[in-house]
Amino acid sequence: MIRLLLIGIGTGNPDHLTRAATKAMNDADLILLPRKGDAKSDLIDLRRTICAQLLTGPTRIVEFDMPVRAAEPAYLDAVTGWHDAIAGLWMEQAALHLPDGGTMALLVWGDPSLYDSSLRIAARLGPKVDIRVIPGITSIQALTAAHGICLNRLAEPVLITTGRRLREQGWPPGVNDIVVMLDGHCAFRDLPPQDMLIWWGAYLGMDCEELARGPLGEVGPAIVERRAALRARHGWIMDVYLLRRAPAAFN
Amino acid sequence: MIRLLLIGIGTGNPDHLTRAATKAMNDADLILLPRKGDAKSDLIDLRRTICAQLLTGPTRIVEFDMPVRAAEPAYLDAVTGWHDAIAGLWMEQAALHLPDGGTMALLVWGDPSLYDSSLRIAARLGPKVDIRVIPGITSIQALTAAHGICLNRLAEPVLITTGRRLREQGWPPGVNDIVVMLDGHCAFRDLPPQDMLIWWGAYLGMDCEELARGPLGEVGPAIVERRAALRARHGWIMDVYLLRRAPAAFN
Repeated sequence: MIRLLLIGIGTGNPDHLTRAATKAMNDADLILLPRKGDAKSDLIDLRRTICAQLLTGPTRIVEFDMPVRAAEPAYLDAVTGWHDAIAGLWMEQAALHLPDGGTMALLVWGDPSLYDSSLRIAARLGPKVDIRVIPGITSIQALTAAHGICLNRLAEPVLITTGRRLREQGWPPGVNDIVVMLDGHCAFRDLPPQDMLIWWGAYLGMDCEELARGPLGEVGPAIVERRAALRARHGWIMDVYLLRRAPAAFN
Repeated sequence: MIRLLLIGIGTGNPDHLTRAATKAMNDADLILLPRKGDAKSDLIDLRRTICAQLLTGPTRIVEFDMPVRAAEPAYLDAVTGWHDAIAGLWMEQAALHLPDGGTMALLVWGDPSLYDSSLRIAARLGPKVDIRVIPGITSIQALTAAHGICLNRLAEPVLITTGRRLREQGWPPGVNDIVVMLDGHCAFRDLPPQDMLIWWGAYLGMDCEELARGPLGEVGPAIVERRAALRARHGWIMDVYLLRRAPAAFN
């Protein structure tokens, strides 16, 4: 029997870890750390740092290479095949290092419930794997905390969406406040900037955290430039932003 | 100069606290614990427990009585006056216990950014108060972790909204997945239950955690009854739920 712990670690700052996450790491017999190529080596380095700082017992750490996602035109098909491949790798590692069963853990960026694939991959593992989720601080919470703002306006709703969706479908109906995640293409550029405010953050919680805020028409173009420069400098970028439209602009 | 720390503590389980939250509590000279009346004494008891478990230094704990919110027909007006009163109380406590300045902390249920008033109250304190936010695990994350589910479907958006809004405006446009918070009246009862799934949780993360899941038509009525019984037993209830509509039902 394998128990799989999906541990939310927050956004790269060891201080984001909860007491439950630290305990779960130490309860695990095995922690799997995925390698995602040289350009993203910061991400595995952060996980190594978290392990070095927080593990106090005999938990074994094993690194493995992540498969590359096929660049198919059909995005969802490519994702499905990629998830199958990752599930296979997890079970290979379990068979190799936990032949008699035990507890295996993955350190999930942010929270395992939010735009993360671990739970979908874990669903492929079958009934013999017992899955447990330990929540972590999301980049949305790191963004609002860094800016010292509320996510929602008083008694108002908030939509969490993706850059792809904002680009393809425009401003969503019925809301004035949206959080945009997974946006590699600055979808906010295509929005009418009048009466629109943006709160943006990248590398949230890390030493190299970057923040910007203001009227979209004023700060939007600067964010596009800064994002490109940061991505070139670090080799990767993770960012998130909140857009808030004046209620008068509601239609 | 007063520094005010708004520390997200998660949903009542001391293991929800992050390392940053624990450090911030210990950095504070003063922690204010609001008393909300006998019926909600569990809530201050939990904060007392968290302080007892996590404070290692000389941080002073001061309890104060929260004002009662006026039962005005105009909800937003009542909230505004109530927030003014609370801001006044915070500053009274600061003047009393930190006459030469220092760091004052509040332990905020969940995360200070999400349907919480602390940041709005803090905004009334003026420029001499320096505000810092430490994010915490929200009830949404505790809900999805307890059920072992993702908040969003692959590449799909999620709306976070309130019971009041769902009751008054019905199912929101453009989304199939919504999280409902602050719902004292089980607004899901008024929705057409076909093709609708619910994941519900109350007292999330606490020893008395309660969960339910399933087709809304089957489990909805049972949740209404169970919620009333739990509220009577504990004197209070905090719950949250995710509703997921089959894409075919999209209109």
